[in-house]
Amino acid sequence: MNDASTFPSNSVGIVRTKYFTFVQPPEFLQLVSGKTLSPVTLAYETYGQLNERRTNAILILHALSGTAHAAGYHSPYDRDPGWWDDYIGPGKAFDTNKYFVICSNVIGGCNGSTGPSSINPATGKEYGLDFPIVTIADMVNAQKYLIDHLGIEQLLSVCGGSMGGMQALQWAVSYPERVKSVIAIATAASLSAQGIAFHEVGRQAIFRDPNFNGGNYYRGNPPAAGLSLARMIAHITYLSEKSMHEKFGRRLQNSDLFSFRFDTEFQVESYLHHKGLKFVERFDANSYLYITKAIDYFDLKAEYGGKLTNAFEHVRADFLVIGFTTDWLYPTSQSREIVNALRVVGKNVVYAEIETDYGHDAFLLPNERMERDISNFLKRQLEKANSAFA
Amino acid sequence: MNDASTFPSNSVGIVRTKYFTFVQPPEFLQLVSGKTLSPVTLAYETYGQLNERRTNAILILHALSGTAHAAGYHSPYDRDPGWWDDYIGPGKAFDTNKYFVICSNVIGGCNGSTGPSSINPATGKEYGLDFPIVTIADMVNAQKYLIDHLGIEQLLSVCGGSMGGMQALQWAVSYPERVKSVIAIATAASLSAQGIAFHEVGRQAIFRDPNFNGGNYYRGNPPAAGLSLARMIAHITYLSEKSMHEKFGRRLQNSDLFSFRFDTEFQVESYLHHKGLKFVERFDANSYLYITKAIDYFDLKAEYGGKLTNAFEHVRADFLVIGFTTDWLYPTSQSREIVNALRVVGKNVVYAEIETDYGHDAFLLPNERMERDISNFLKRQLEKANSAFA
Repeated sequence: MNDASTFPSNSVGIVRTKYFTFVQPPEFLQLVSGKTLSPVTLAYETYGQLNERRTNAILILHALSGTAHAAGYHSPYDRDPGWWDDYIGPGKAFDTNKYFVICSNVIGGCNGSTGPSSINPATGKEYGLDFPIVTIADMVNAQKYLIDHLGIEQLLSVCGGSMGGMQALQWAVSYPERVKSVIAIATAASLSAQGIAFHEVGRQAIFRDPNFNGGNYYRGNPPAAGLSLARMIAHITYLSEKSMHEKFGRRLQNSDLFSFRFDTEFQVESYLHHKGLKFVERFDANSYLYITKAIDYFDLKAEYGGKLTNAFEHVRADFLVIGFTTDWLYPTSQSREIVNALRVVGKNVVYAEIETDYGHDAFLLPNERMERDISNFLKRQLEKANSAFA
Repeated sequence: MNDASTFPSNSVGIVRTKYFTFVQPPEFLQLVSGKTLSPVTLAYETYGQLNERRTNAILILHALSGTAHAAGYHSPYDRDPGWWDDYIGPGKAFDTNKYFVICSNVIGGCNGSTGPSSINPATGKEYGLDFPIVTIADMVNAQKYLIDHLGIEQLLSVCGGSMGGMQALQWAVSYPERVKSVIAIATAASLSAQGIAFHEVGRQAIFRDPNFNGGNYYRGNPPAAGLSLARMIAHITYLSEKSMHEKFGRRLQNSDLFSFRFDTEFQVESYLHHKGLKFVERFDANSYLYITKAIDYFDLKAEYGGKLTNAFEHVRADFLVIGFTTDWLYPTSQSREIVNALRVVGKNVVYAEIETDYGHDAFLLPNERMERDISNFLKRQLEKANSAFA
């Protein structure tokens, strides 16, 4: 157990998740698909204080399986802090002594925001597959209500990795006047064919689990076998071949000798099984379907005649784009595509291509270079924002 | 339909698969695991003629899902020829006017050789998971009986891609006096941690299919959902990101507009589904388990104190090693590891690193450079073999 007084001095300490319900029937959130959603609740957390001029607010957005709990601890008994605690806190890259940091969950998810496991007011039962398909733009439109509610006219920065980076880019395109800067990490303007392929086999693992039952499993056994398998597949894509080699190689789990059985005997197998099992404890299979589909659909170019430069034309934000050399799910070529398009239309953009062995997962791990780049970028953004009042 | 007379002039034409049963109880094949197998049947095909001096025999070995049917047609009604027909035939790289080409299936498989779908003489029923775990060395030891049976003292070459390349390397190590040369394509001295990981998720897809029933499904419905999912996962690893991008990109199957449903709508999804469905028509789920496990276990170094150079020390063969630049399942670094170890112990080795966009699948596709390299290498080997008699 952590006594509150034993948290590290650069921790935000004990935090709690808040919930904002912003449309109630007969009002609704209009979705890209043409369907509507109501009521809509977003889970979010905040760290630090909003300054008087409201110039220091930063919105942090999470990846596929993330939550609003980005930093600190929910109780003194928590073993692990929030998912980006390495970067958020007093003196850290997202310095809570300087910035008001908001982390918002997404619609479609299962961690406090409206999603397929929420109650459908039309039936009084969980939505299941009656939940409408949501897009990254829909997620962002929902978050806009939250930012309005918090009284923030302009965000100093919108930041995220992977799907969080997609949301950050979408924010800059959808609400140019609301976004002063974007930090887009390990992300892309659209997912590759290979990425879609991996998502689809994950979804099929869920669909083919007999417990799935057309998505109506909330009163019975969830499709844990399918969901954990989907997570195992995905986890391979989050690591680089090199990091897998160094972490596990061909080492066996319990012996120096082959079992000559279909046991889980290589360490890499055991690791994936563990990751799969842990995941089903905290994630909903239907949400996995909806969120992977939202990522697959994301394509900043598509609405702009297939040209990324057109999409960025009216953006007002400055950009920090970060890619990782061994990330093969969101390869650096896709980061550079974003950077090049921004430069063509004359936007301010800093590109950091960071050498690492950790693959896509690198954005979640401590990295001095990334910390420094984010910290410096935000400092300049805050100076710019405050100088407007000088 | 193909009239026999309409086959291309460089086709081996109509061929048939032969079956050689080489041990019958109480005799048996000793396996690496300590278990035994009996009876043992191998399916194989031959093309061309063995010369009088028996110096022109080439053994071709196939990959995970391959069969003995490497070239020609089984009937005039066949739409597709054998799996390596581009390389085997009159005037082709494996020139059947010059060479006697043998393609052997593997134990553990499901295409005519003894495997988990064979009848276990102890029970009168299919083996299922009572079939013993087999290794690449076991496969090779079985093939040695076939080569003995065909009266061939020394093979001019042993050749294969992927798992076929592993068998070829194992042949040179296990039977140095029987192998004059090896052509090892898109292969490795051991599978990477990432490769093991992909195999394990494929196996789990099968294990978790309720039709799997502990491997006893031969009298009922096979685990088609699990096996096709395993194949979908594997197929992603056979293609490069670039070839997927060029072949499918983000194009949709039937429309320009998103369906906003969980349909199969991206072309890449449809392609994978098709590949999965075709596979279950021709492959046994238990064989998929056994053969992936054999590949996972393969490690030429393991028996030689962890040193590949030790494994190659007593090898007598010359080597042609071929790697493909975009193959990320068996990356060229693994080809170079083989080449370097062979050079350290003074073996003759030619290394061809072939530029291609096609990823691991490249070894199955027509490639002029590969054809020329194989053709030239074999010509020199045959000259050397015949000069010994001059």
